[in-house]
Amino acid sequence: MRCSCCKVCRHYSILLDMESYNTDDIIYALATAWAQSALAVIRVSGEGCRKALGECFSRPKALLQAKNATLVHGFITDGQNGENLDEVVAAVYTHGHGYTLEESVEFTCHGSLPGLQKLLALFKRIGLRPAQGGEFTFRAFLHGRMDLTQAEAVQELVAAQSPRSQAMALSRLEGSLKDRISAVKEDLLVVLAAVEVQLDYAEDELDEFVFPLSRLQEVEIALERLASSYSVGRLYGQGARVVLAGATNAGKSSLFNLLLKQQRSIVSATKGTTRDYIEADCSFEGIPVRLYDTAGLRESSDTIEAEGIKRTEQLIDQADLVVYLVDSTEVQQSYRSDDKTLVVFNKSDLAKAPQGSLSVSAQSGEGIAALASAIAKRLRQGLPTTGEDQVVIESERQKVLLLQASEAVQRAIALVELDIPLDIVAAELGEAMQSLGELTGEVTPADILQKIFSGFCVGK
Amino acid sequence: MRCSCCKVCRHYSILLDMESYNTDDIIYALATAWAQSALAVIRVSGEGCRKALGECFSRPKALLQAKNATLVHGFITDGQNGENLDEVVAAVYTHGHGYTLEESVEFTCHGSLPGLQKLLALFKRIGLRPAQGGEFTFRAFLHGRMDLTQAEAVQELVAAQSPRSQAMALSRLEGSLKDRISAVKEDLLVVLAAVEVQLDYAEDELDEFVFPLSRLQEVEIALERLASSYSVGRLYGQGARVVLAGATNAGKSSLFNLLLKQQRSIVSATKGTTRDYIEADCSFEGIPVRLYDTAGLRESSDTIEAEGIKRTEQLIDQADLVVYLVDSTEVQQSYRSDDKTLVVFNKSDLAKAPQGSLSVSAQSGEGIAALASAIAKRLRQGLPTTGEDQVVIESERQKVLLLQASEAVQRAIALVELDIPLDIVAAELGEAMQSLGELTGEVTPADILQKIFSGFCVGK
Repeated sequence: MRCSCCKVCRHYSILLDMESYNTDDIIYALATAWAQSALAVIRVSGEGCRKALGECFSRPKALLQAKNATLVHGFITDGQNGENLDEVVAAVYTHGHGYTLEESVEFTCHGSLPGLQKLLALFKRIGLRPAQGGEFTFRAFLHGRMDLTQAEAVQELVAAQSPRSQAMALSRLEGSLKDRISAVKEDLLVVLAAVEVQLDYAEDELDEFVFPLSRLQEVEIALERLASSYSVGRLYGQGARVVLAGATNAGKSSLFNLLLKQQRSIVSATKGTTRDYIEADCSFEGIPVRLYDTAGLRESSDTIEAEGIKRTEQLIDQADLVVYLVDSTEVQQSYRSDDKTLVVFNKSDLAKAPQGSLSVSAQSGEGIAALASAIAKRLRQGLPTTGEDQVVIESERQKVLLLQASEAVQRAIALVELDIPLDIVAAELGEAMQSLGELTGEVTPADILQKIFSGFCVGK
Repeated sequence: MRCSCCKVCRHYSILLDMESYNTDDIIYALATAWAQSALAVIRVSGEGCRKALGECFSRPKALLQAKNATLVHGFITDGQNGENLDEVVAAVYTHGHGYTLEESVEFTCHGSLPGLQKLLALFKRIGLRPAQGGEFTFRAFLHGRMDLTQAEAVQELVAAQSPRSQAMALSRLEGSLKDRISAVKEDLLVVLAAVEVQLDYAEDELDEFVFPLSRLQEVEIALERLASSYSVGRLYGQGARVVLAGATNAGKSSLFNLLLKQQRSIVSATKGTTRDYIEADCSFEGIPVRLYDTAGLRESSDTIEAEGIKRTEQLIDQADLVVYLVDSTEVQQSYRSDDKTLVVFNKSDLAKAPQGSLSVSAQSGEGIAALASAIAKRLRQGLPTTGEDQVVIESERQKVLLLQASEAVQRAIALVELDIPLDIVAAELGEAMQSLGELTGEVTPADILQKIFSGFCVGK
């Protein structure tokens, strides 16, 4: 079904029958972290929510009559026994405003865990529904406040692990990716329109047709460039898993503490001190890293230690990079770094490491800065360079669709170069268009939407 | 120096020269938890804050012209390079309104850690000052929005560890303790006034004076009752430390996991499995408990284990209750529960525990409910019973002042009963009055105030 906006693009209406995302319900969720703090925010959205909340708010009339974007002070009270549960400020948004463009209320309350528990239980009891992950943003998307790339940017922004990925996600939320895709679609449309005109009229009615090949090639380059930015977005956004491994007593725990700049792991001269693996977050040159200190690798008759070693092996499998630590005083074989492994010789204060190898002293701290830098360099290896103003994507879904669009455009170019009839070229261009429409959410099937939004944190 | 409000009470003005709490500054703080979440709130307070924030807000004019209790949507931007740092909603309070009664702005922003870092750094750069703990509440107190018992209730509310302590703190925030103290002070004042009148006139000008002794006795009972509620408030508010101790392999880790209802500690048949102690929060009959699983007590030649045992001993010293676990299959001596120790026999599935003793099977779960109940009972031992509507205090400062007031009243009663001259009685009553004034913050010295508020979490 084609939409009425133009002759060639294909807008499909979004399927609204997503099972768990019933948009008639009034939904609520804690939007701040589940942790003791000065303040916390509980979000409520859905038409009629102020009337429903009036049941448990000390000033129902003020709430109901509040103008858009105003604050109402009051108490949340348990209607059953009249007990005040918390003193709150309600931020009121009327229909057509606020994040979801629905009537909604955001309560700023005290960040007391037992208090929040009481409020959430009360909201459930008066008939509101706990929101699914991403459901507020889904409603914002559905009501046209943002396209799908912006909706995805909301969660990417919240989950950003580094200043750089936060900036990239905010830029997408502001519409940088949406605009880039729009520009690409416009170029594609120009090409498609020219082709369709050519197809609609007999050849003799028109001047000789010159296919706008260079324009299409530019489209293809833009798409590929966006798709390849995924590896950058992923590294800075989601970070990397780096595992410290090596023989027992190679000094992994000392190195771990040194890299974290805190005494996290128990260090002792006894082999097999670390059993349960220990993880901590840090960053190397702006790249967020989850660092793992592990049980040393050796044959062990100790069942607890053996369990620890088994877990180390699993961690190595899942790692983006393994820093394999060798005790320079006990080198028994030759070690070689590979794609996933960086071999580092420890105890440089006691013994000389092999020529040209990376060596540190976890004792004196010598070589630690160089190691951090080497880890960052290895993690960045093979990434495309991205300028200041380049749009960088972080979603695998977006990458896949960009590649699909890019491949369809490539096929179209190949067909043109082989002088294949234009209707076949048009079909490929239509497919590219379809992928881009799915990217921005115009033609995205409900099950895909549900999958996207359910990955969000609750309260967004 | 007496204040002018009446003849007998003694109000002192609060000393305003508290060094780190300069009230002319514009202060800011993250008021929600430092954790990734959908939303976060940054509070800013101080006269002129909207003008200052205009430097880094995309709509400075809208911010400056906003009416009290309204919301303004916009971006926080870095004035230096014009980069948008986050999309936010600003809740505006004008002078005389809001939490602090100062001009203030609460930004609801995205709960991204790198994003929050950027915003906080920016606020510092434009000349705002990071708030000290409790500084917003201090300003609310200073500007007369609440008395000191209510101010303290704010932090007690936020830090409440159980539904019951949350309700008790909210009641204090609403003024229940303030009102109770006011009533007591009024009674004291009536007595004091009668005494002062008697002192001001020659005896022959007045009818025979009958000292209102029963009224003073009622005051004393009320004060003592409030002071004794501290033990209840403390238990439900701050919770108790319960340490699982015992010989190695008595089954402490199994019992620990069972009480927590999760597999937290590694369990093995090997003696000395637990080295680092493990702590987790749980609750027994509404009492919040921090439960510790510890290294088993034995002579050990293993230095890591020995370090673990040393830490166990420290934990036992600091515990409110030690649950000493005995392996029923290896009973080598007799064990007796004392004030701080509850002896429990484990492995009831394998061997019979001594007659009348508490026994469980961490293997089968038998006896666990009875144990949880016994722990709660032991923790509540000796607490005064408190009715539904009783005001319960949670602050040691308040307890000390209530006891001081109560003791001064007791001395006054004793003096009256010995027919000691009234001016000496009046001095004691004045002292009681002084303690109560300090309790509510009318006569509290600056260093005490600073100590109170600095114990608050930042953002409150």
